[in-house]
Amino acid sequence: MPLVRIDALRVDKARLEALGRAVHEALMETIGIPPDDLFQVLVGHDGVNSTLRYGDYLGVHRDEGIVYIAITLRAGRTPDRKRALYRRIAELAEQYAGTEPRNVFVTLTENASIDWSLGNGVAQYVPSSTD
Amino acid sequence: MPLVRIDALRVDKARLEALGRAVHEALMETIGIPPDDLFQVLVGHDGVNSTLRYGDYLGVHRDEGIVYIAITLRAGRTPDRKRALYRRIAELAEQYAGTEPRNVFVTLTENASIDWSLGNGVAQYVPSSTD
Amino acid sequence: MPLVRIDALRVDKARLEALGRAVHEALMETIGIPPDDLFQVLVGHDGVNSTLRYGDYLGVHRDEGIVYIAITLRAGRTPDRKRALYRRIAELAEQYAGTEPRNVFVTLTENASIDWSLGNGVAQYVPSSTD
Repeated sequence: MPLVRIDALRVDKARLEALGRAVHEALMETIGIPPDDLFQVLVGHDGVNSTLRYGDYLGVHRDEGIVYIAITLRAGRTPDRKRALYRRIAELAEQYAGTEPRNVFVTLTENASIDWSLGNGVAQYVPSSTD
Repeated sequence: MPLVRIDALRVDKARLEALGRAVHEALMETIGIPPDDLFQVLVGHDGVNSTLRYGDYLGVHRDEGIVYIAITLRAGRTPDRKRALYRRIAELAEQYAGTEPRNVFVTLTENASIDWSLGNGVAQYVPSSTD
Repeated sequence: MPLVRIDALRVDKARLEALGRAVHEALMETIGIPPDDLFQVLVGHDGVNSTLRYGDYLGVHRDEGIVYIAITLRAGRTPDRKRALYRRIAELAEQYAGTEPRNVFVTLTENASIDWSLGNGVAQYVPSSTD
């Protein structure tokens, strides 16, 4: 279920996929997402036709290695699980893609179970009596 | 009002627009969106500079025909209306764009009436006394 | 903290960045975002591989100068602050990028403080006792 959107600057396909793998494994390890529950949009920006902007907010120095990771998921994870997720994404993004932890930016947007249709035109998490 | 974001892999412009049309007609038919309430970002990914990843979660076999449809809309639609929307998107995506229903992935994110400005710098759904 | 996503059609880099600057200054002026709290994904669409669709909903005539601005931010801004934000974005987008106010479309999505990690794998707004 989580829909993951990753935006990075001037990366090749291998690095994009390494970032995707890092986020997916972190989701599996920290909030129990199954291995095949994999839904990602990975976008590399060329810095001309599309680009990223960033600042040094909160004293974190960021540079063009910045990676924006926006995850939409059902509500219900505890603060501790979310913290574990952030920590693990940063670790694996460094390990798999060479992204420095200071450049790993994550935001979560929660919705409800009825807000998902994972194929076949059905709301799999809240099926109606006739599905 | 709904802002619709569609991401697909290696599609031409005609197929992208067919997907957009499918989602828009489904919104009109099932949750009463007016015809000119059309706001869409349609993105085809080349699989190199940007790409999609997917798995077979919940026993649904997906392939590179996967289409991610992320809709931001005001809160308030009932579960039944949302189910009808998912069903109709899947039907029309197949009819207009040849997308198999198993490859149609939809997620909704709700916000409030005050969270929209549809032009002219005004919050049209909750105007202030001076607008 | 706000993560800003801007989508525009057939724009060059200068115009994309002018739009980004307009939104950022409006956030600073109206809801008190610090100057270095700058996180933006700016995307120009070529109209072929990716494109935007739009209608004249609510009597606002839009054209290919349309700009979609989607802002994710923590909950808590009042309706008046949001109205001020919309107004100022429209003003500055016209001033900096020549975008007509009728073509400025903004939507906000709110989340919670725990839903942000702004680098280093930490939830900066809600640190745990061990961070």
